[in-house]
Amino acid sequence: MTAEQFAARHIGPEPADERRMLEAVGYGSIDELMDAAIPEVIRWHGTLDLPEPATEHDAIAELRALAARNTVAVSMIGLGYHGTHTPAVIRRNVLENPAWYTAYTPYQPEISQGRLEALLNFQTMVTDLTGLATANASMLDEGTAAAEAMTLARRASKSRSPVYVVDADALPQTVAVITSRAEPLGIDVRVLDVERDELPAEFFGLHLQYPGASGAVRDHAPLVEAAHAVGALVTVAADLLALTLLRPPGEIGADIAAGTTQRFGVPMGFGGPHAGYLAVRAGLERMLPGRLVGVSRDADGNPAYRLALQTREQHIRRERATSNICTAQVLLAVMAGMYAVYHGPDGLRAVAARTHEMAARLAAGLRAGGVAVAEVAFFDTVTATVPGRAAQVVAAAAQRGVNLRLVDADRVGVSCDETTTPAHLAAVWAAFGVDAVDGAVDAALPTGLARTSEFLTHPVFRSHHSETAMLRYLRRLSDFDYALDRGMIPLGSCTMKLNATTEMEPVSWAEFAHVHPFAPAAQTAGYREMIAQLEGWLAEVTGYDAVSVQPNAGSQGELAGLLAIRAYHRDRGEGHRDVCLIPSSAHGTNAASAVMAGMRVVVVGCDADGNVDLVDLDTKIDKHRDALAAIMVTYPSTHGVYETGIASLCAKVHDAGGQVYVDGANLNALVGFAKPGRFGADVSHLNLHKTFCIPHGGGGPGVGPVAVRAHLAPFLPGDPLGAHVDGRPAISAAPYGSAGILPIPWAYLRMMGAAGLTRATGVAVLAANYVAARLRQHYPVLYAGNKGLVAHECILDLRPLTKATGVSVDDVAKRLIDYGFHAPTMSFPVAGTLMVEPTESEDLAELDRFCDAMIAIRAEIDKVGAGEWPAGDNPLANAPHTAAMVSGDEWPHAYPRSVGAYPGGVDRAGKYWPPVRRIDGAYGDRNLVCSCPAPEAFEG
Amino acid sequence: MTAEQFAARHIGPEPADERRMLEAVGYGSIDELMDAAIPEVIRWHGTLDLPEPATEHDAIAELRALAARNTVAVSMIGLGYHGTHTPAVIRRNVLENPAWYTAYTPYQPEISQGRLEALLNFQTMVTDLTGLATANASMLDEGTAAAEAMTLARRASKSRSPVYVVDADALPQTVAVITSRAEPLGIDVRVLDVERDELPAEFFGLHLQYPGASGAVRDHAPLVEAAHAVGALVTVAADLLALTLLRPPGEIGADIAAGTTQRFGVPMGFGGPHAGYLAVRAGLERMLPGRLVGVSRDADGNPAYRLALQTREQHIRRERATSNICTAQVLLAVMAGMYAVYHGPDGLRAVAARTHEMAARLAAGLRAGGVAVAEVAFFDTVTATVPGRAAQVVAAAAQRGVNLRLVDADRVGVSCDETTTPAHLAAVWAAFGVDAVDGAVDAALPTGLARTSEFLTHPVFRSHHSETAMLRYLRRLSDFDYALDRGMIPLGSCTMKLNATTEMEPVSWAEFAHVHPFAPAAQTAGYREMIAQLEGWLAEVTGYDAVSVQPNAGSQGELAGLLAIRAYHRDRGEGHRDVCLIPSSAHGTNAASAVMAGMRVVVVGCDADGNVDLVDLDTKIDKHRDALAAIMVTYPSTHGVYETGIASLCAKVHDAGGQVYVDGANLNALVGFAKPGRFGADVSHLNLHKTFCIPHGGGGPGVGPVAVRAHLAPFLPGDPLGAHVDGRPAISAAPYGSAGILPIPWAYLRMMGAAGLTRATGVAVLAANYVAARLRQHYPVLYAGNKGLVAHECILDLRPLTKATGVSVDDVAKRLIDYGFHAPTMSFPVAGTLMVEPTESEDLAELDRFCDAMIAIRAEIDKVGAGEWPAGDNPLANAPHTAAMVSGDEWPHAYPRSVGAYPGGVDRAGKYWPPVRRIDGAYGDRNLVCSCPAPEAFEG
Repeated sequence: MTAEQFAARHIGPEPADERRMLEAVGYGSIDELMDAAIPEVIRWHGTLDLPEPATEHDAIAELRALAARNTVAVSMIGLGYHGTHTPAVIRRNVLENPAWYTAYTPYQPEISQGRLEALLNFQTMVTDLTGLATANASMLDEGTAAAEAMTLARRASKSRSPVYVVDADALPQTVAVITSRAEPLGIDVRVLDVERDELPAEFFGLHLQYPGASGAVRDHAPLVEAAHAVGALVTVAADLLALTLLRPPGEIGADIAAGTTQRFGVPMGFGGPHAGYLAVRAGLERMLPGRLVGVSRDADGNPAYRLALQTREQHIRRERATSNICTAQVLLAVMAGMYAVYHGPDGLRAVAARTHEMAARLAAGLRAGGVAVAEVAFFDTVTATVPGRAAQVVAAAAQRGVNLRLVDADRVGVSCDETTTPAHLAAVWAAFGVDAVDGAVDAALPTGLARTSEFLTHPVFRSHHSETAMLRYLRRLSDFDYALDRGMIPLGSCTMKLNATTEMEPVSWAEFAHVHPFAPAAQTAGYREMIAQLEGWLAEVTGYDAVSVQPNAGSQGELAGLLAIRAYHRDRGEGHRDVCLIPSSAHGTNAASAVMAGMRVVVVGCDADGNVDLVDLDTKIDKHRDALAAIMVTYPSTHGVYETGIASLCAKVHDAGGQVYVDGANLNALVGFAKPGRFGADVSHLNLHKTFCIPHGGGGPGVGPVAVRAHLAPFLPGDPLGAHVDGRPAISAAPYGSAGILPIPWAYLRMMGAAGLTRATGVAVLAANYVAARLRQHYPVLYAGNKGLVAHECILDLRPLTKATGVSVDDVAKRLIDYGFHAPTMSFPVAGTLMVEPTESEDLAELDRFCDAMIAIRAEIDKVGAGEWPAGDNPLANAPHTAAMVSGDEWPHAYPRSVGAYPGGVDRAGKYWPPVRRIDGAYGDRNLVCSCPAPEAFEG
Repeated sequence: MTAEQFAARHIGPEPADERRMLEAVGYGSIDELMDAAIPEVIRWHGTLDLPEPATEHDAIAELRALAARNTVAVSMIGLGYHGTHTPAVIRRNVLENPAWYTAYTPYQPEISQGRLEALLNFQTMVTDLTGLATANASMLDEGTAAAEAMTLARRASKSRSPVYVVDADALPQTVAVITSRAEPLGIDVRVLDVERDELPAEFFGLHLQYPGASGAVRDHAPLVEAAHAVGALVTVAADLLALTLLRPPGEIGADIAAGTTQRFGVPMGFGGPHAGYLAVRAGLERMLPGRLVGVSRDADGNPAYRLALQTREQHIRRERATSNICTAQVLLAVMAGMYAVYHGPDGLRAVAARTHEMAARLAAGLRAGGVAVAEVAFFDTVTATVPGRAAQVVAAAAQRGVNLRLVDADRVGVSCDETTTPAHLAAVWAAFGVDAVDGAVDAALPTGLARTSEFLTHPVFRSHHSETAMLRYLRRLSDFDYALDRGMIPLGSCTMKLNATTEMEPVSWAEFAHVHPFAPAAQTAGYREMIAQLEGWLAEVTGYDAVSVQPNAGSQGELAGLLAIRAYHRDRGEGHRDVCLIPSSAHGTNAASAVMAGMRVVVVGCDADGNVDLVDLDTKIDKHRDALAAIMVTYPSTHGVYETGIASLCAKVHDAGGQVYVDGANLNALVGFAKPGRFGADVSHLNLHKTFCIPHGGGGPGVGPVAVRAHLAPFLPGDPLGAHVDGRPAISAAPYGSAGILPIPWAYLRMMGAAGLTRATGVAVLAANYVAARLRQHYPVLYAGNKGLVAHECILDLRPLTKATGVSVDDVAKRLIDYGFHAPTMSFPVAGTLMVEPTESEDLAELDRFCDAMIAIRAEIDKVGAGEWPAGDNPLANAPHTAAMVSGDEWPHAYPRSVGAYPGGVDRAGKYWPPVRRIDGAYGDRNLVCSCPAPEAFEG
């Protein structure tokens, strides 16, 4: 492999390092190691049928050619996706900055204060604009946010009715997602013209769109009152930009608001990623799904941020969870929040006013030209009626480079946004055959609905309006955080590996960024070919027959896969099959997804080696044979082991009529060596943000394609725009989900090729076994498979040490910060342990630096155990140490400052300092604050 | 001004802040302030004739349209400009990262260790590859590096001969630059076929090209010996990539090596910017021009980097300087050095071998097809002879998307590089009409010249070969440094203002990045139109009639301007005029440039107010009336004052037959309010990296266009390619100098428009007067003009405080680091003072933070003065404080740690920590080390 080959850049260890690592593990070659580690029964000995690897330069050239086949038109389609000007300072310093995009989810809050503050800005922006009490740190898109709002309403409503009423003027893709989510849960969705049709006598919830998909702005207050009268909750799916001018949902009594923040500076990206939002009135905050950032305090009593109310989340509540949502859309939420910070309230109002003015001028011109425009009151969108001519008008506009919305044969929708210019209006008029004279017109906003309340009054929205100030704010926040650009993030099951620049660069290109998800097919040929290639390569890598990239997170992929199984059984007349077996070691998300798919979860135990207990499996199969729908297993297991019983497990479940779901979270240990689709699985979701190099973005975006064998292919997700649904579920709002970041895995696969991918897997497994070999004598390695080998990660058991010394996994995790590391996964899948996944991208020097730190920490634990340091005052208990702490005028601790600050040869000049000390999470949960604290909180 | 207008983003203070600032200064409006500050005699009351300001989005669209008119062809022209693959990780994290590009020149070394290390890598790369002892931190391009080598040779040679012999196979643009530089210095350049022609009996230097422009690789050892025999020094202009395979200049006895590092990952950019290099054998290091990074030690005795031997530089030596070079090409040198770090010695050898293999296959194919190829031995370039057909072949290749070099009617040059593919070879063969069969061939490198010595043996060139490792290395280094993305850099005369992202983004576009400076005119229509527009706008802003953007640094603009004056006098038969008057307050560069232009410098004194002493001016004019060529003045003066005598000064010089040169360094105080070309000046250079927003890049690139009134226009720089020179000088190697970064000032002017530019000037002057008003009672403000007002900067006089307390400007500058600031300009133009230029981009909060810090420091000085703190052990003397120092286990100081670490309310969480303590510069000059120190140096 030469330096010209990308694989040599992606994979950390050079050949000489690899030899040293093999020596430590006791194997002569990676092939020998893998032969020993992977059970022969699942081993695949072929060569992946992928194109020869391209150089970085050639891959970019190919992507340029694909991009050139997309047409960047002026988009006036609307439907929740709008043109927007991403401020260049935000694009370059957030979207294109590895300090932001290579960060992990902020589970270690002390080293995540930057993005937590940025998310608090986002939450404050949403609550201020919606007029509600609490917003979470983002949802996956508007459609899934609306679906989550529905289930939230069901939980919170006192009504026992299964009916959920949806405004017929809701976005059609939102209706599709809601409907798909409702069916397995037994919710009866009624789509009604809420202005005219009579509401049912009983219903638990009501979904309203504000403004409507047609553009109409209606006063929903009477409907809210009517819904509340029957005990129903009301969700208003609202456009945040419109809310700068319109009375917000909270002020008309809405319980929930849901929507998207895409038009706050996030490119459309052919559907995503962008940040959905979800906000609730006071009293519902503890029922919110998703991640919620809150204010707490650190060991010095200073304000500090962390994820709040984590016990709500699926990884804790498992089958009792009310949502399976894990990841958020942090990177995009940061962008949208910063857009609000940069514009401030006056700037946002100006953007909204200008957008509205364009729409008003557009409508006036159409009316003057004799075209009927339905709405009296609108914000940015008008629906024009041109009997029988709609398709012709849309085509004429497309010829002028403008996309309009074809509502039906007689109606055309036109949406304005901050990018709309008079030239665009002229093109639209021309397409309608109207010879309009542009000019000032009256606003068409209903005066009775004008917003009177203030918003974004916090100083952060008034302090960073010059580019210089914004640049420094972004730098300051990113400096607070620890991301892959500083060092290793050895998170088991999360595969934090290289997110190569060449993979990232195309995401910024206009031809990928500025495409509407419902643009005409002729304009998206490049995108669709790229996606088809990617789906094909993913199928080849996994051994499946069909792949859909629509699910925009791993959790959504799980749901899509389980819904496919459910539909398959129903299609065969076995709709009664509803039991999903899930091993006790599984990700909590699995159980939550199964519940969402309408299944009953039955837990299968694990044996002492951490493997699925095949005896218990037999018992559970016997017990539920007729009702058995599926088993969900992770392979290699969440214990980081290649279980030898997997083939047998698949056979047993198949024999009982069930389907096998293999969670693809650990695919990085399989690529090139085993294919789930070949060793017995029927369906998997893949985490493109793990194995396939989409960066974690500080907690999203994720992408979770679902891959299936042929018999499940008819049940893959369908186009969320009604006409094409044909019984397939809508998992995301956009047909290809977060299409805008698919160039990343495309480029990864294109540049690695068969040999590179296979070598990456081998080096990842070698690295995990190298770490296990170096640390085994200091910390027991909990589970192993063949010949004592682990797969791509290893679990270090701290429980005996904790018992003996009182030093907890938390202490070790925080102490690693002092050594310059992000902690491994804590207490998953086994409480009291650390799970380490080094990946193939870490070079030997970094692996050794980590092992040295862990060994040094073991010696520190021993000092506590020996009583040399008091249990309550030692470098572990006090970790992490801030610069302010170690340079304090007083030093009341039982060990020297240097031991606190610079343990184990940490590079003094380049040391990363966390901005806060250990955070007291429980305090914040007891005193819930989820918006920006006043500046005075930071004084003294 | 709305948020949609770029000016509102560029200018820091918002309207409310502006009112507060005006109040502090005592004026009701910016207009009133400017009326008071600027002498009416020079005031221009018009409105700049510029297009209406474009939004950021529209400006990008216009630039896209211009870029689309450039053709990105495969470049095989060679002549020192080659296709190269910029590693994406370097592009994104250096070229596109404000932490690198917004940094200032590393004059404050404690907060510049990152780029100093990167430059040390660059120097080590150059010395290793050339086999010479010492290399500087980069030159402006190969042509000017070669010209500097010539004057260095003249200084060092014992020969009194004025003859400089230049290899006829040297790059033609290098010959042009050398010739232009030689003429005013009385050097007699002889271009000879050094292989065949007899050398002169006496000469002081010899310039050889290796490989030659023709591609030929010759053994120059005999010529070196012959030159040394007559006391001449030998410069080898060598291709660093070729030197990975060929015996280096140092090993054949060369005294000097010069060249470019462009092909080490720096795009061609239609000529620049890229980093030239200059290296010398042992014994010549103290004669090197330009910036030189060396290793010294800090207050703890740890290794630390800083600029070495600064007393060589023009700002110290003035008219005794041997070169006027100030800025280097730091940003590009960092890129080239990192390219070597990323590839390592083996990787570079592989790139070179592949490049050579392509050339060898190309030559073999041509020969097989009956085309005569001159060279027996070559590296990457061959010259083919096709009698009478050369133009036809070149045209045929261009039709296939490949540019070749048209040498003359019979010969075509073809250069390969790392981007060359077999498809390119096929296109070339087809253009020659050859039906070649590609395949493996023997190497065509002369075995006798094969490189046998090792290079890049330092670990830094072996440790960062994975992208992950490279990313972290870049992050680590950039974190060491303080740039505009952290806070204010209030450098007098350097105008460190916003470098907006929208201005920067187009620099990365292929249509600007990948264009050869000698590409056919038809392929560069977009570039040339953009440059013509920019030159026109600059002429409008300055009131001149013609502008040339060729000079690629301010110093080169000065030289170009003075050469124009010289040529003008000679053209009028007044060639005897050779006296250049220069005020004592001038930048040292002015005097150095005058000497290079063949002039005698006569110093004019300043009066007590810091203004040019008009009485002394009269005296000097009288004394030198007949010989008077020019006066060079800076306006506003280097004292930061609008001198009222400027018009009178111009008249006096004109009356005596002299020309007036106004140094444009301080143009940020004039734009929109006064035009040098209208108030009496004949010529100016502009610093596009000051007033016009090209970032300083950590010490380059700079761009220094020269602007003249009509009578001097015929003497502006000419095309460096011989055919078009027609008597005009070649100032840079490329016709448009550093064209690749001209989109930056273009976008700035396009987005600001007349009103924005004028307002920027007003706010810059307001900000300086605000700082002066707030600090005056704490530090005397040294000079002022009308009504006690300063222009865009102010000088704080520390001399009385230093005398009373021993606290020096150095102490204050270093203490500002503890407060989170970059120091103002130190001891220029007056020793013992600080010159502060806040610019229009700093908002009021940052201005106040700076003023508060200065006031707090004044209180600290008083404590030293009062004896509360010992003179030798106080926070000022010990500044800057590192984190390691303030957290040390011992604290032997006379003040608390918190005073050292967190003075005056510095943000604890976000504090910038310098990586080293105060550096002992003199130690390093006594013990000169200018390449990477061994890792052991950092131990202990």
